Amino acid sequence: MAASTRTSRPTPERIFNTMVAFQETEALKAAIELDIFTAIADGASTAASLAARTGASERGVRILCDYFTIKEFLTKKENEYALTQESAVFLNRHSPAYLATMINFLASPWSRKNFAGLTEAVRKGGTANTTGDHTKPHEEVWVNFARSMAPLTIANAEFIAGLTGAADAKTCKVLDIAAGHGMYGITVAKRNPNAQIVSVDWPAVLEVAKENAAKLGLADRYTTKPGSAFEVELGDGYDFVLLTNIFHHFDVPTCEKLMRRVYAALKPGGQSMTLEFVPNEDRVTPPMAAAFSLVMLAGTDAGDAYTFAEYEKMFRNAGFAKTTLHPVPEMPQQVLLSEKQESPI
Amino acid sequence: MAASTRTSRPTPERIFNTMVAFQETEALKAAIELDIFTAIADGASTAASLAARTGASERGVRILCDYFTIKEFLTKKENEYALTQESAVFLNRHSPAYLATMINFLASPWSRKNFAGLTEAVRKGGTANTTGDHTKPHEEVWVNFARSMAPLTIANAEFIAGLTGAADAKTCKVLDIAAGHGMYGITVAKRNPNAQIVSVDWPAVLEVAKENAAKLGLADRYTTKPGSAFEVELGDGYDFVLLTNIFHHFDVPTCEKLMRRVYAALKPGGQSMTLEFVPNEDRVTPPMAAAFSLVMLAGTDAGDAYTFAEYEKMFRNAGFAKTTLHPVPEMPQQVLLSEKQESPI
Repeated sequence: MAASTRTSRPTPERIFNTMVAFQETEALKAAIELDIFTAIADGASTAASLAARTGASERGVRILCDYFTIKEFLTKKENEYALTQESAVFLNRHSPAYLATMINFLASPWSRKNFAGLTEAVRKGGTANTTGDHTKPHEEVWVNFARSMAPLTIANAEFIAGLTGAADAKTCKVLDIAAGHGMYGITVAKRNPNAQIVSVDWPAVLEVAKENAAKLGLADRYTTKPGSAFEVELGDGYDFVLLTNIFHHFDVPTCEKLMRRVYAALKPGGQSMTLEFVPNEDRVTPPMAAAFSLVMLAGTDAGDAYTFAEYEKMFRNAGFAKTTLHPVPEMPQQVLLSEKQESPI
Repeated sequence: MAASTRTSRPTPERIFNTMVAFQETEALKAAIELDIFTAIADGASTAASLAARTGASERGVRILCDYFTIKEFLTKKENEYALTQESAVFLNRHSPAYLATMINFLASPWSRKNFAGLTEAVRKGGTANTTGDHTKPHEEVWVNFARSMAPLTIANAEFIAGLTGAADAKTCKVLDIAAGHGMYGITVAKRNPNAQIVSVDWPAVLEVAKENAAKLGLADRYTTKPGSAFEVELGDGYDFVLLTNIFHHFDVPTCEKLMRRVYAALKPGGQSMTLEFVPNEDRVTPPMAAAFSLVMLAGTDAGDAYTFAEYEKMFRNAGFAKTTLHPVPEMPQQVLLSEKQESPI
């Protein structure tokens, strides 16, 4: 636990910090629950004024704000705290890029329970939780996901809308599988006034997606098919099928099964667009995509962050002759684009 | 959540990583429980051989070891994992500097419960847990501390032994208050064959300290006074009183009360040696000392990481005319040395 790393001898500092890393999650959760960052954005700058505004103790606020100054989410000058650019953009409730809601899913009791069982998960090779079969509905988990995680979709959804050629405004039919908050299909509809969106997810989850579509005035072009993506009648003749963050939940045969249904639902020349964490073949780079594998070990029976070679093979087995990889700029995920040939193979 | 920070625009990557920081603690806990690092030290290098050795699944081991490659506690070449210098020194059970036991205290259910109540702690200005008054015994907590945290003491304890002039082997009487594992007093006794150690802590905790003293053959110079440091008869005529990691648990009047007892127990010319996290006056530097304040907010009714000016004043109020500060090389803690004048003031 050396205070510096100037020497070349190893110090236990990083190990110590990893042992107490859970404290960082709890500190951010507390600051978000007390809406400290918004209070600072609104002009409160001292521990006393922040305490008055948030209904907390001055001592508690002082210690929490000092902690986030140390962690560089705040600055402190004399006794006045200010937001950094990072917290101003993402943790101030008034900012359009506010994403603090994500902690409600990322550090939810369900997610913590998955990780609390990690030793057992490593032993058995899959989650120790009872909710590991994601072909079954666990609606409370995915409604929470849909309510919490929309802020993270913006860049990915705009990128996917771009790949569909939304700007050309051609009439098209889009199937959004495991729609969640619905923001991927909704963004296509927002950018293309002639797109019709059909979304599939568990019934309670689709209520969130419908709300989001209605808020943007897109309800008339937004229909839903409640149920399992493996069982519900999907329809056919789609120009595009969106598969965002779904394959990583399943083992390879289950992924192939889903992709065969997608192949059947597309019209000839139609395209499936898969958004995923895709690690390199070494499975340890790039860091965020590769580390996602642990989240799947902790939370699913047999899911994983698959490599491009693995996806390419699964999709080929499902009928797609060719799949290409498209990194989303500045984001850790990539889009796999697979086209159904005009003359089916 | 951009994959890089090359642009100057803020990205949500650091915030995302903070939201999921608890995963790092759980991953390290799993690796320690499965003793993966020792298995690698013993020559297992592939997921298959590690799985066989640890009784875990190959898939689980592969994902966990990939994760620790990403986190730079392992390296991976083809499919073979190896320890880094850091994990070889601190996480391999055969290493004399092995400190993995620390996670049993740092991420104990008690510590997690303290932090799970952090929002409430910020509201009220002290822990939301029922164990916040550390003048009362919470023996299960401190026995766990004593069993888990000894590895972290080595550098601090040697430094303190040096300050007592242990190498001169002068006859001396040392009082070790809140001894815990006992390693501070024990190290003085190890370095000075003419030192007598008297240690104070709760009865069950002192059993751990006595075990440690006996292991090193020091039992004949090691006596104990079980009970509260605020109430037990301490004796007097001590050359040195060690106060390691105790004041941060209490409010200022309680610290002063303890220090008055210490003053009375010292012989004229005797010295008290206080080991503490001592942040600078800005309370946000240096990072490890300053961040410790949050641990005290989460876990105590009124404890804190006090500044040198605060300690100097408390100790002066308790009778010590002068206190000096001594940083422990390469460690985040410092020793405050206070001498009882030959002619008491």
